[in-house]
Amino acid sequence: MNKKIVTLTLACLLCHSVLLAQQALFWGGPQITSPQVNPDNSVTFRLLAPDAKEVKLTGDFLPPQGWIPGSEPMTRDEKGVWSYTTKPLESDLYGYALLVDGLRMMDPNNVHQIRDVATVTNIVITPGGQGDLYSVQNVPHGTVTRTWYDSPSNKYVQKRRITIYTPPGYEQGKRKYPVFYLLHGMGGDEEAWINLGRTSQIMDNLIAAGKAEPMIVVMTNGNVVQEAAPGESSLGLYKPTMQLDGTMDGQFEASFTDVIRYVESNYRAIPKKNARAIAGLSMGGYHTLHISRYYPNTFGYIGLFSAAIMPDQSRADSPVYRDVEGTLKKQHENGYSLYWIAIGKDDFLYKANVDYRALLDKIDMPYVYRESRGGHTWTNWRVYLSEFAPLLFK
Amino acid sequence: MNKKIVTLTLACLLCHSVLLAQQALFWGGPQITSPQVNPDNSVTFRLLAPDAKEVKLTGDFLPPQGWIPGSEPMTRDEKGVWSYTTKPLESDLYGYALLVDGLRMMDPNNVHQIRDVATVTNIVITPGGQGDLYSVQNVPHGTVTRTWYDSPSNKYVQKRRITIYTPPGYEQGKRKYPVFYLLHGMGGDEEAWINLGRTSQIMDNLIAAGKAEPMIVVMTNGNVVQEAAPGESSLGLYKPTMQLDGTMDGQFEASFTDVIRYVESNYRAIPKKNARAIAGLSMGGYHTLHISRYYPNTFGYIGLFSAAIMPDQSRADSPVYRDVEGTLKKQHENGYSLYWIAIGKDDFLYKANVDYRALLDKIDMPYVYRESRGGHTWTNWRVYLSEFAPLLFK
Repeated sequence: MNKKIVTLTLACLLCHSVLLAQQALFWGGPQITSPQVNPDNSVTFRLLAPDAKEVKLTGDFLPPQGWIPGSEPMTRDEKGVWSYTTKPLESDLYGYALLVDGLRMMDPNNVHQIRDVATVTNIVITPGGQGDLYSVQNVPHGTVTRTWYDSPSNKYVQKRRITIYTPPGYEQGKRKYPVFYLLHGMGGDEEAWINLGRTSQIMDNLIAAGKAEPMIVVMTNGNVVQEAAPGESSLGLYKPTMQLDGTMDGQFEASFTDVIRYVESNYRAIPKKNARAIAGLSMGGYHTLHISRYYPNTFGYIGLFSAAIMPDQSRADSPVYRDVEGTLKKQHENGYSLYWIAIGKDDFLYKANVDYRALLDKIDMPYVYRESRGGHTWTNWRVYLSEFAPLLFK
Repeated sequence: MNKKIVTLTLACLLCHSVLLAQQALFWGGPQITSPQVNPDNSVTFRLLAPDAKEVKLTGDFLPPQGWIPGSEPMTRDEKGVWSYTTKPLESDLYGYALLVDGLRMMDPNNVHQIRDVATVTNIVITPGGQGDLYSVQNVPHGTVTRTWYDSPSNKYVQKRRITIYTPPGYEQGKRKYPVFYLLHGMGGDEEAWINLGRTSQIMDNLIAAGKAEPMIVVMTNGNVVQEAAPGESSLGLYKPTMQLDGTMDGQFEASFTDVIRYVESNYRAIPKKNARAIAGLSMGGYHTLHISRYYPNTFGYIGLFSAAIMPDQSRADSPVYRDVEGTLKKQHENGYSLYWIAIGKDDFLYKANVDYRALLDKIDMPYVYRESRGGHTWTNWRVYLSEFAPLLFK
């Protein structure tokens, strides 16, 4: 061991990094900053693509063209760097991608991506408002656990993956916590709320600000035929699809007691109605509606986020969907603290929610209604989570 | 509520999916299968890119050109679908990407991706051997937890993120488990081993086969200036870099007692030398070497995977690097069950490891040496994990 060897080794290590950096440079890497959030909350996107003929930016901050996401042409400079600067954006979390000569690609300078069903998008956050709630802040952090529970009541699969957030201090203390069950929509899974929904960031920040009670948040997989998210089960690295068998056949609702049993026997959960909340988006709103009335004395807080309400379930055999009005009345008689319905003005499910509220009005069942702008989007669901969580367990 | 409304709602939901599918189709989505693992373990990759002039495939199954990853041209058919079929591949996990007219992009038909430092790659697994160990199988699954621990001995940051695997049955039982501390390399973080290293799949499969003892696996962040992986701290969604301050200044090694204290007071861990293992890759091998001799009576099992050995630490002020030979001798005197050194024949750190073994030979310190083919790659580190874990706690 002498200094020469040491120096050589160190030089090799650095050399290795430099060459890796050159590799990245070769592929159009590190000399580009993208995205760049400017002081006025406009965002500049850049791509080095000297040989491209046309580069566009697509993102949920651009007005969509019907069902097609909005896009804007980027401008090429003399070095082959394409760029586009948005107008100042409201503080939020945005998804985007690049369209290079018609091909959709990720921004190679941004490793921060999330998957929505079978589509991966880059993300960027603008600060100063809602975006701050979705960012990791310098506050105490909760714990996120991916584990597996037994679901003997599910006829399709009995071992199922689940994501659980426990609040800061959970591990160090002895106290029991209320539990919030949070359900995804069609095409989602137990990764949807924690990734797309920014649940841990929202909960950490609301709890630190004293706006939400410390609580356990349980994110299930609502696709009863699935053990786990694509890539997390023995089905391998397959391509996710929007539609799966059985998602609305009553199995998930009927087997939800398995989830509650697992949580209440493995976590320090308060096993009481007023310490249980349930909410879900789209299909998860439909599941929430039916779980909460099928087990009509179980949840103190119910949230329907852009719920995919299909009240007439005569086509489904499951006992879960029988006597909707009767069980809602029972749920009302048993009592609950909050029945919260939220939907965007432009949501394709708007009318179905109007009709559902008419039913609730008819049977004098109280609820709180929150109408937002926008449609059937994660932008809205993150807002709903950040508004609903502070109403719980007070 | 009548049937007409219901039918309309259902139609809208389906319509929504169909339009999403059309959207995806518009971007070159669902009609393409890629990657496709064929019965002979060759893999076919496809991309719809009618307007591209040249499409290449790059992947770690192709021979590299020096430091540049290997690539092969793909062939265009009359519909604009480019494809390439590899020769039959050994069973393994492979990374790949597409090069379209010189631009590196992800396979839009494969959502399965992992990040290595600032580079994202698609992954594909071929079955029948090592690849089966890296796949989720139909066996009992452990739990993966991302949490935060206090590190008062670290002068840079005192709240730090950590990833912890607990074996199947941990939650249901009362028994205590041995603990394996698993350290990443330069540019990595607390996400490296669980994602790139496939730790939970490897451990689940080895434990289910009776090849490894049930154990807790603790994956730290070895960058002492970082609270957490890029995107997981209050620094926001920044771009990861290969080199960070302080990673080899002795702080991580000296503050490792904070990790052990956290694990042994929050998990059912056996607090004994022969129930503690530590291993790391590259920089993590260097950390492992120094942690295990600086605390010379703490670990029963030590693993150096392609370790970045730089024995002469006279340039570093830290007491951690003083008297390397003396503390190694002390470690030897105190006793340990296994000192395992693994490196690939083509690794740029090969010579440094030869020299280190010469030092160990000189002081009569026993070790087991495993020389593999290949270089400084995750392919090797996954193999080393799958070979080292079965040697522990027997």
